Amino acid sequence: MNVHVASTFEDVPQLYKRHVFACYTQRPAGHPRGSCGQQGAQPLWDRLSRKLEAERLGEVGFTAAGCLGFCSAGPLMVVYPEGVWYAPKTPEDIDEIVETHLKGGELVERLVVVLSR
Amino acid sequence: MNVHVASTFEDVPQLYKRHVFACYTQRPAGHPRGSCGQQGAQPLWDRLSRKLEAERLGEVGFTAAGCLGFCSAGPLMVVYPEGVWYAPKTPEDIDEIVETHLKGGELVERLVVVLSR
Repeated sequence: MNVHVASTFEDVPQLYKRHVFACYTQRPAGHPRGSCGQQGAQPLWDRLSRKLEAERLGEVGFTAAGCLGFCSAGPLMVVYPEGVWYAPKTPEDIDEIVETHLKGGELVERLVVVLSR
Repeated sequence: MNVHVASTFEDVPQLYKRHVFACYTQRPAGHPRGSCGQQGAQPLWDRLSRKLEAERLGEVGFTAAGCLGFCSAGPLMVVYPEGVWYAPKTPEDIDEIVETHLKGGELVERLVVVLSR
């Protein structure tokens, strides 16, 4: 770990090629906002993080996130630097995101969610 | 909120111009790894999120994150899509990140932390 000086964004070395943030919010059953947790997020993120580890995809960061908003659209995850939001529902969806986007560098069109503020 | 199909990363509309993820991990005093919380993160992130709200910077997303790793370098936050990691220590550091980077679109060189995997 080092502290450097960089003068523009382009000069800043990148820690990860891609960085996934996945919502781990779990609200109680019956909560009016719902939550990604209530919609089955946990086993999906477990699978995602295990796959990244198993495949030694160190160039992909994985971080648990608090509420990303848009709770009814969950389970939600976002991949940067591309700024792509996905709403996977099944283990197969996770596998496709890992293979196609995180490893392959291509969009998984069918799982993209476009959100508006 | 809509579900669309986009075929390349460039086609995906961006929810935010910038998205900040700030580590809210708090480990107990004396924990060998330490934590951003132990290094004073909470009041800094409170200030950051309040400022974004007060200035109605809706184009900047702010999300609480779990451990981002590199605990000894904290308090840690990362700004995407630029992939810039900052380690602010004071309220003035937060104000400068908001003004210069999040609003102004320029790097705050003195607060950048370059991390290596």
